[in-house]
Amino acid sequence: MNGLPSSMRAPLDPELLRRRYGQVRRRSLALAEPLSDEDCTVQSMPDASPVKWHLAHTSWFFETFILERFEAGFRPFHPAFRVLFNSYYNGIGAKHPRAQRGLVTRPGMAAVRAYRLDVDARMLRLLDSRAGDAALAELVTLGLEHEQQHQELILADVKHLLAQNPLYPAYADTPPAPATAVPALSWQGFGGGIAGIGYAGDGFCFDNELPRHQQYVAPFALASRLVTNGEYLAFVDAGGYRDAALWLSEGWDQVCAGTLGHPLYWLRDQHGGWREFTLHGDHALDPALPVTHVSLYEADAYARWAGARLPTEAEWEVAAASGAGGLLQMAGHCWQWTSSSYAPYPGYAQQAGALGEYNGKFMINQYVLRGSSCATPEGHARASYRNFFPAGARWQFSGIRLAR
Amino acid sequence: MNGLPSSMRAPLDPELLRRRYGQVRRRSLALAEPLSDEDCTVQSMPDASPVKWHLAHTSWFFETFILERFEAGFRPFHPAFRVLFNSYYNGIGAKHPRAQRGLVTRPGMAAVRAYRLDVDARMLRLLDSRAGDAALAELVTLGLEHEQQHQELILADVKHLLAQNPLYPAYADTPPAPATAVPALSWQGFGGGIAGIGYAGDGFCFDNELPRHQQYVAPFALASRLVTNGEYLAFVDAGGYRDAALWLSEGWDQVCAGTLGHPLYWLRDQHGGWREFTLHGDHALDPALPVTHVSLYEADAYARWAGARLPTEAEWEVAAASGAGGLLQMAGHCWQWTSSSYAPYPGYAQQAGALGEYNGKFMINQYVLRGSSCATPEGHARASYRNFFPAGARWQFSGIRLAR
Amino acid sequence: MNGLPSSMRAPLDPELLRRRYGQVRRRSLALAEPLSDEDCTVQSMPDASPVKWHLAHTSWFFETFILERFEAGFRPFHPAFRVLFNSYYNGIGAKHPRAQRGLVTRPGMAAVRAYRLDVDARMLRLLDSRAGDAALAELVTLGLEHEQQHQELILADVKHLLAQNPLYPAYADTPPAPATAVPALSWQGFGGGIAGIGYAGDGFCFDNELPRHQQYVAPFALASRLVTNGEYLAFVDAGGYRDAALWLSEGWDQVCAGTLGHPLYWLRDQHGGWREFTLHGDHALDPALPVTHVSLYEADAYARWAGARLPTEAEWEVAAASGAGGLLQMAGHCWQWTSSSYAPYPGYAQQAGALGEYNGKFMINQYVLRGSSCATPEGHARASYRNFFPAGARWQFSGIRLAR
Amino acid sequence: MNGLPSSMRAPLDPELLRRRYGQVRRRSLALAEPLSDEDCTVQSMPDASPVKWHLAHTSWFFETFILERFEAGFRPFHPAFRVLFNSYYNGIGAKHPRAQRGLVTRPGMAAVRAYRLDVDARMLRLLDSRAGDAALAELVTLGLEHEQQHQELILADVKHLLAQNPLYPAYADTPPAPATAVPALSWQGFGGGIAGIGYAGDGFCFDNELPRHQQYVAPFALASRLVTNGEYLAFVDAGGYRDAALWLSEGWDQVCAGTLGHPLYWLRDQHGGWREFTLHGDHALDPALPVTHVSLYEADAYARWAGARLPTEAEWEVAAASGAGGLLQMAGHCWQWTSSSYAPYPGYAQQAGALGEYNGKFMINQYVLRGSSCATPEGHARASYRNFFPAGARWQFSGIRLAR
Repeated sequence: MNGLPSSMRAPLDPELLRRRYGQVRRRSLALAEPLSDEDCTVQSMPDASPVKWHLAHTSWFFETFILERFEAGFRPFHPAFRVLFNSYYNGIGAKHPRAQRGLVTRPGMAAVRAYRLDVDARMLRLLDSRAGDAALAELVTLGLEHEQQHQELILADVKHLLAQNPLYPAYADTPPAPATAVPALSWQGFGGGIAGIGYAGDGFCFDNELPRHQQYVAPFALASRLVTNGEYLAFVDAGGYRDAALWLSEGWDQVCAGTLGHPLYWLRDQHGGWREFTLHGDHALDPALPVTHVSLYEADAYARWAGARLPTEAEWEVAAASGAGGLLQMAGHCWQWTSSSYAPYPGYAQQAGALGEYNGKFMINQYVLRGSSCATPEGHARASYRNFFPAGARWQFSGIRLAR
Repeated sequence: MNGLPSSMRAPLDPELLRRRYGQVRRRSLALAEPLSDEDCTVQSMPDASPVKWHLAHTSWFFETFILERFEAGFRPFHPAFRVLFNSYYNGIGAKHPRAQRGLVTRPGMAAVRAYRLDVDARMLRLLDSRAGDAALAELVTLGLEHEQQHQELILADVKHLLAQNPLYPAYADTPPAPATAVPALSWQGFGGGIAGIGYAGDGFCFDNELPRHQQYVAPFALASRLVTNGEYLAFVDAGGYRDAALWLSEGWDQVCAGTLGHPLYWLRDQHGGWREFTLHGDHALDPALPVTHVSLYEADAYARWAGARLPTEAEWEVAAASGAGGLLQMAGHCWQWTSSSYAPYPGYAQQAGALGEYNGKFMINQYVLRGSSCATPEGHARASYRNFFPAGARWQFSGIRLAR
Repeated sequence: MNGLPSSMRAPLDPELLRRRYGQVRRRSLALAEPLSDEDCTVQSMPDASPVKWHLAHTSWFFETFILERFEAGFRPFHPAFRVLFNSYYNGIGAKHPRAQRGLVTRPGMAAVRAYRLDVDARMLRLLDSRAGDAALAELVTLGLEHEQQHQELILADVKHLLAQNPLYPAYADTPPAPATAVPALSWQGFGGGIAGIGYAGDGFCFDNELPRHQQYVAPFALASRLVTNGEYLAFVDAGGYRDAALWLSEGWDQVCAGTLGHPLYWLRDQHGGWREFTLHGDHALDPALPVTHVSLYEADAYARWAGARLPTEAEWEVAAASGAGGLLQMAGHCWQWTSSSYAPYPGYAQQAGALGEYNGKFMINQYVLRGSSCATPEGHARASYRNFFPAGARWQFSGIRLAR
Repeated sequence: MNGLPSSMRAPLDPELLRRRYGQVRRRSLALAEPLSDEDCTVQSMPDASPVKWHLAHTSWFFETFILERFEAGFRPFHPAFRVLFNSYYNGIGAKHPRAQRGLVTRPGMAAVRAYRLDVDARMLRLLDSRAGDAALAELVTLGLEHEQQHQELILADVKHLLAQNPLYPAYADTPPAPATAVPALSWQGFGGGIAGIGYAGDGFCFDNELPRHQQYVAPFALASRLVTNGEYLAFVDAGGYRDAALWLSEGWDQVCAGTLGHPLYWLRDQHGGWREFTLHGDHALDPALPVTHVSLYEADAYARWAGARLPTEAEWEVAAASGAGGLLQMAGHCWQWTSSSYAPYPGYAQQAGALGEYNGKFMINQYVLRGSSCATPEGHARASYRNFFPAGARWQFSGIRLAR
């Protein structure tokens, strides 16, 4: 581990790493392809960031944590970028305030593209000159996984931005994929006992998935698939948002304040029906698709209404690791809220230095989501992966899997 | 259990219950004895309540959940009190907004005293006429435990109110007890394994202590006593509030905003030294006393600085239940922050009806404190008792016990 | 003038001054008579103050500006009161934050009553020993006029406090006086020309009424009486609060935000009719009484709807000074919003020292009200009197007189 | 007047109007020339608007108030633009919320340029086909004057946006013009008497400059030039921001809150000296230039410190109309705060319809500035011109001229 926030026991083939570097970095730019420079500049809320910022910050990560350490005669692309594109690493020094990321119109997209090209050229030279350096390979892998996390954020943040536009423009011109038929929901049972929790492989994982440790899990059952829009609509129509008894107190406060009444991107049409804003523009709500963009409060209220509950993250991991064939939509559709607060595993050790800020300092007032979403890059997540957001966050692709 | 949020398997002797009713109810009034009617009326912040409100609400609890159900020909003392003194029970109907409790100057303290007398007379008649009624006895016991919780809140809330007064008036005229010598801090080790967690006796407990269940606990050690003011002062003097690496992100935000820089009631004297506001007025900071009125952020930062961590609530309970002789100050000094978020135990079932709102709906974004404090009524807490507050709360008597 | 914020050219008879001192000071206590100590302690919003604070601050005024200067061997009643009961005089030193006046439960009402007794005894001794001292007499007169201003505030602030109580308690047990018949509204015309504006007599006035100066006033007409509740109700029923064209932009923002929809103390009854909370409790809205507790936004919108406008303060003063017999309700009912912003008269000179803060520093973003209200002490106001509040203030007894 | 918010008695030559239309419209685009599309998209605060919005809204004005009324077979360029680019005209229907103007990334700058081209082509056709139509000419003139107002706002808003960028980018690459020597400040005296105030010519003016009317003005003197940076710096260095006695109460509150301590764009350099951010980037503070970007609070405090006061708007207009030769910098440098609140002139009549919202509804809690600034288009302002902003506004080019 070498004090790194990642685990990668087997050495990575240098050529593979080089190729993977190119693939991941190109995909970030590809995500910005359908967007104008103006789209890439604006910040729609403090929780979201401009696409331009994501593109720059992920390059800053390589420049700051790798080039500065390994490159001979290192000179920053632009001294001001060290501050402008630092997200939250106090150990690196000053950082530009998060809520003001959208006010920086210069450097513009052209300059950020140049920044990426420059970092890429230097990174590839470095990978050539130090092929086989394990410490470098670990850091590069971390940088790529980090960039993949931002790729998902790019899609969530762009969706939020476009949703603020009264014209509801589409990110992608293609129509959304038609939903296939919804299989009946069944319950997959699991016996209790002591389970190993946390990453057990020899590839990459984040530090928050470690150390692998034992937990006692009581017998439980997991729903075979995610809750659909149609099922959630039945909850809405049954007055789910009007019955205090279903809600956690904080969620009910939001309902009473009028800020919570349906999933984030649901829209009323003129006839009282529902539409949904998607990356493909707004469309009639598809009852067969998994409900998404719900808060933990909504997920919890729905589960209570349905006579069920949300899984703990240990239950989810036990089920996922079991390879139980009957479990559908565990990955690639929506992140799945668990009832577990985001906390360090027993024996968790934060590494020294700025990279130690990657995960540990956020382990408060956040809840774990498991699985992955339609916006998660291929191959990024795994059964032990821990995503986390505050209970009220809705702009991520978050959905509901029931347990009991 | 009868669907009640309490567990009390052994029948309670009717005469004992009657006597206990009188004792608990009298103690609430005794706590208000040193206060003027004006002191009892004012609300110092939305989180705190006026003493008058506490005195009325605890009576409302008996009137609403017991008299209304059991008393023949029930008529409320005053119809408006049903709304005025409802804390948060949506199932009961409307409630007066929490932040406006201090604006209700009428009914005044005289009327609230009359309310208490009336409820007490009716309750005692009821206890006489239905001696031996187990359902009644359970509810009365819950009402008394509930009142004891408010007795602790009365002291915390009054302390906060008086602290807003630039004259720093004392609640009690007596000087604070001199601290005894501080024993050296040692570490008490505990082996790992599957442990039974949750209430196991046959007396009263709250629903959140149930059901008793199994958890796997890894080996750990607990500090033999609480962190002292003197130790915490060393952390302050060493720049603990200036080192971002020690802090959870949310805590550091508060430090940067200038709202977190020392325990809540510490005051600078004119010579740069420290005083502390207490229920006995303000005094020179006593380095031998346990540090108190700290947030979870501060407790966590201190622990990190000290090369330790906070215990989980399971660890704390295992240690407390072990009766380990070397553990001092487990009860009666300060509530002890744990790193565990407040969540339902596996199999937790909220009862039907309004009393189901007692605990369950608050199980979000709160953290568990264990033990009890100098403000906790004698006999109220136990090893399985779960107190809970948001991570930033500081006006409770909350302190720090280290683990590792 | 001696640099005082008042004008009093004729010497005041010492015996008269002594008697007047007693009368004014007693009346303040009489206003608190129907109130409990609890009523006197609470602050219902930052703009309002506790009655106790008013009683203490008016005494502080005499102690600070008179006793401290004239009394041999002056010693303050309580050193902390200098800060606690300073309203806004930066020249005097620190002041307790306005929004926290309601948090100071000690000193209680008993102590404040003792403070008043002490100040009164010392003031009367001083008046005896320096009978005929013109500088003293001027300051005492200012202190008494100041106290009368606070007497009106006491009633406005108590009304606001009691209105927050869902039981709508009455300040006074007596029923409100029945309204007499409403005379038809007529228009009293005034020719234009250069007019003398400002105080012209030889009694007391505030510095903001000086210097008397010339203004050119165009011909205008003033309504013979105030707008009634019945007339204002017609505006409400006609959709006055739904027609943007009637409103100043800031007022319309409040309407859209849902915070402005009827006069402050109007209440809907269960049948869709209107009641009004008054110092006598809540009663059916009396259509014959002048509408009161309206903001300048509402007064202006009503005037526009009625095809009229609000008078300027110069017009109002010209009319009042003319003694025009046809003008009813110029004093003693409601303060009358004018369209004039509160600004210094040409040549206005603020006096040196802390008393210079009495008026001048508030001459920004406030609008002038003329006349006097049912809450104004007998003999306090006059034709040149300038009251002033922000355009949105509604808790004062403010009404509408039309002009054109 | 025809109910128009403008006065233009003499018919305008059609060819002149056509030429003027082209000039004004081209200048708006020229102002955007140094900016990237990204610069034009972002909104730096709710009070400011994106440049793109200004460019679209000024076209919307022509489309909505002229084309829709006069063009045969009118069809809007884009139906959604009616809402998107409506600033505040409730009479026109819905409007996009002001604070969210920066979230609309689509339409982008290319689409807005196309919108301008389309409106221009249609307007020019209309001007050809209805040459000599007086009603049309008046409206077109109003539209051009309106666009010129937005041209000044474009510069103020861009300056504010670029000032949020930690790199302090320059709007214009050229260096700022060197200040010429500062002439000694002298006082120009004016005798009192009845003066005619308001527009008296036969060209265009805004409705708020009408009707011309009489006011009595007492004798006064005006400073011969604006207050310089150097003079204001002396005020700062003398502790002007630390002396409560100099400040209006609202201004002092801002000082105490730490949000007011120097003119908006002054920056401390590393050696304790001052720099200033300008449209040419940041430069050492030039002591010879007029101080600018100050609030009315600061202007008033400076005047008090200097033993002077601010002029009333009537005084300013009397002086400007007098053509007094000794008065420098009356136009083209900074708008000059007056002590006059923005109020309707006696007899002011708002026109019917949506254009009536142009001025009247803002006549509350704003103060008048006279003159014009370096950002005001050539020929736009005049002696009777009334600019207005809230007392705390600082992002306009606002400065100080003393009176006494």
